[in-house]
Amino acid sequence: MPYYIGDVIRDERTLVARTPEKFREAGIEVRLESTVAAVDAAQGRARLTTGELLPYDVLVLATGAESRLPAGPGFDLPGVFLLKNLADAIRIKAHLNRSACRKAVVIGAGFIGMEMCEALRDRGMETTVVHRGDLPVARWDAEFAREIVAALERNGVAFLADTELHGIEAGTSCPLTVMTSRGPIEADLVLVAVGIAPNVTLARGMGLRIGATGAIGVDAQQRTSAPNVYAVGDCCEVYHRVSGRWAYLPLGDTANKQGRLAGRTIGGRPAAHPGVVGAQSFKIFELETAATGLNEAEARQAGFDPVGDVFWGNAIAGPFGKRKLGLKLVADRASGKLLGAQAIGETGAVGRINTLSAALWSGLTLDEIGYLDLAYAPPFGGAWDVIHHAAQRLQRKR
Amino acid sequence: MPYYIGDVIRDERTLVARTPEKFREAGIEVRLESTVAAVDAAQGRARLTTGELLPYDVLVLATGAESRLPAGPGFDLPGVFLLKNLADAIRIKAHLNRSACRKAVVIGAGFIGMEMCEALRDRGMETTVVHRGDLPVARWDAEFAREIVAALERNGVAFLADTELHGIEAGTSCPLTVMTSRGPIEADLVLVAVGIAPNVTLARGMGLRIGATGAIGVDAQQRTSAPNVYAVGDCCEVYHRVSGRWAYLPLGDTANKQGRLAGRTIGGRPAAHPGVVGAQSFKIFELETAATGLNEAEARQAGFDPVGDVFWGNAIAGPFGKRKLGLKLVADRASGKLLGAQAIGETGAVGRINTLSAALWSGLTLDEIGYLDLAYAPPFGGAWDVIHHAAQRLQRKR
Repeated sequence: MPYYIGDVIRDERTLVARTPEKFREAGIEVRLESTVAAVDAAQGRARLTTGELLPYDVLVLATGAESRLPAGPGFDLPGVFLLKNLADAIRIKAHLNRSACRKAVVIGAGFIGMEMCEALRDRGMETTVVHRGDLPVARWDAEFAREIVAALERNGVAFLADTELHGIEAGTSCPLTVMTSRGPIEADLVLVAVGIAPNVTLARGMGLRIGATGAIGVDAQQRTSAPNVYAVGDCCEVYHRVSGRWAYLPLGDTANKQGRLAGRTIGGRPAAHPGVVGAQSFKIFELETAATGLNEAEARQAGFDPVGDVFWGNAIAGPFGKRKLGLKLVADRASGKLLGAQAIGETGAVGRINTLSAALWSGLTLDEIGYLDLAYAPPFGGAWDVIHHAAQRLQRKR
Repeated sequence: MPYYIGDVIRDERTLVARTPEKFREAGIEVRLESTVAAVDAAQGRARLTTGELLPYDVLVLATGAESRLPAGPGFDLPGVFLLKNLADAIRIKAHLNRSACRKAVVIGAGFIGMEMCEALRDRGMETTVVHRGDLPVARWDAEFAREIVAALERNGVAFLADTELHGIEAGTSCPLTVMTSRGPIEADLVLVAVGIAPNVTLARGMGLRIGATGAIGVDAQQRTSAPNVYAVGDCCEVYHRVSGRWAYLPLGDTANKQGRLAGRTIGGRPAAHPGVVGAQSFKIFELETAATGLNEAEARQAGFDPVGDVFWGNAIAGPFGKRKLGLKLVADRASGKLLGAQAIGETGAVGRINTLSAALWSGLTLDEIGYLDLAYAPPFGGAWDVIHHAAQRLQRKR
């Protein structure tokens, strides 16, 4: 009988009763709030912190990632939350409901922090982002990141760039005070979103191979270096088709695919993970933001000589209204192969990036992308789409 | 000095003065309202209906298509319009402005007729579609065509299926009466949109090769069978990458690409048209509708053994609202290669079809598409997108 060991959430109605029940119906024994202290891969058994030994034929590690904590005191104060899983979301919601929260501070300006800004403003919270760097979402180019800062400001979010965090203290007029290089900021709620790291504690204890990224090394079938031990999700690496290297890209859709493919292999219908191209998106107020492949810095790291260019066009044809869309393409100077793309705009960014993700998947060149056959109609784009314009322009530039 | 001979529209402000002027600035002599009676390809000269002879080194045929006329009398009555070019649009607009038009009849239910229904309802016209077949837009499957009929009806358009047209007569209470197998229909305005045929009169007169589709045969550089004679746009064929055959797919974006590529070749920087995959879209009231590749009937005609399946999912993730999206995939049973796709929904249809167009471009299989890396975020789709669901389901079925 297979085991499931984990922290399935119990206080939100949908997941409470139904998830464990569904597992049981499928013949899976569910051990909630059980922690594995160590795994003996040679013997094929896991030891719980209670001392109980669970033998296994196949072990799947889905240990996820841990949220990073900034240096400094006060991150254990009530009202300070990490953003990792559903349990955190439930606790944050409860805090918002029971306190007279009006002021929130988001620490970190990655895409999770950005999504939180919108959620907090929707709840009417005064919201401030404290960020160490000059611009948010490092994966996106400065030109696009500045559009995101403008969207934050249009929507009443204060964005404090180049700001060092000294810690959090109990406040006087407000429960919390966030101490920064720009002075103290009062808050009812502090969300910490400064990044994550793969949780590889058990894996290290088992002597599994850890990749250069710090995440668990796997093969295309999600097998680790130990026999019958698999890893899936935010704890392991994924093969990046564009760089040709194993990468750490902890994203929900990738985790789903890894889980499914491990399941197929374990269940006797093995299938290989074809890898990722690094497609990603998020919504920030009225903006769609998406990226795929490699940006110029990543391309250089992967050994390419990249050339890039930003094209600003219209997401739909002129007579149907102006909907500005920015598209940056990055290509390999020598071969003309697309290496990556970023897009931002009120509409149409994700559709373009998904199209270019399929193009990256197959290694298309700028010449091909400049004449790609897309479903043209004026409400959805021009006869020459921004994709064509951007590709032709970059082709002329390289 | 190159010539441009054509019917550039003169009564709408933007195009009136500026287009000929721009041509002249570029050193191109513009002959408006000039008709070429015949071309002597051996001598390299065109003869105008005025008798004037124009010698050429290079000739580009961009003779477009002619709108088909149904059988029956009355199509020359005032208030009856074909839908071909900007001049038609200007005449229709003028007619709408000067008459007390309240009742319109659209003859034909292709995508152009569908777009007209929305335009007419936006002007407050009572609108009726008269259609010979049972469902509109033959390229789309019945299940999706029925969604379009429902959208027409929700928006107050009467859709008369299986209706024979007998002709048009002058009316009594209304200027026109459309005579049909379901009785007479009064109208102030009748739009005829029963399809188009390539205009190959000059090409036939020159002895150029006409393809099996009835359009001018060209090569990848848009060369016809005569030296230094090119053809572009709705008068010529285009190579279909999925069927591997030359097809007649008269669409605006394809025409643009053909014109550009002919220009490059003529200008000494030859480039090959990589062909099309048959991507197409239109908006009909609140629905986005798009298709690419081959439908099952087209796939069979092209020699494949196709398998197809419709998946109904959600264009965005559940908590962000329900936005029903239908996606039909067609694949080759033997190889699992994608052959075509159709989508319909309030949002997200065009984005999916463009992604699948890029997949078709490179000949991806259902297995690859089922694990394609797309830019996931809940406002734009599920962790498993409808594309993944549809591909995996069809893969299990084949």
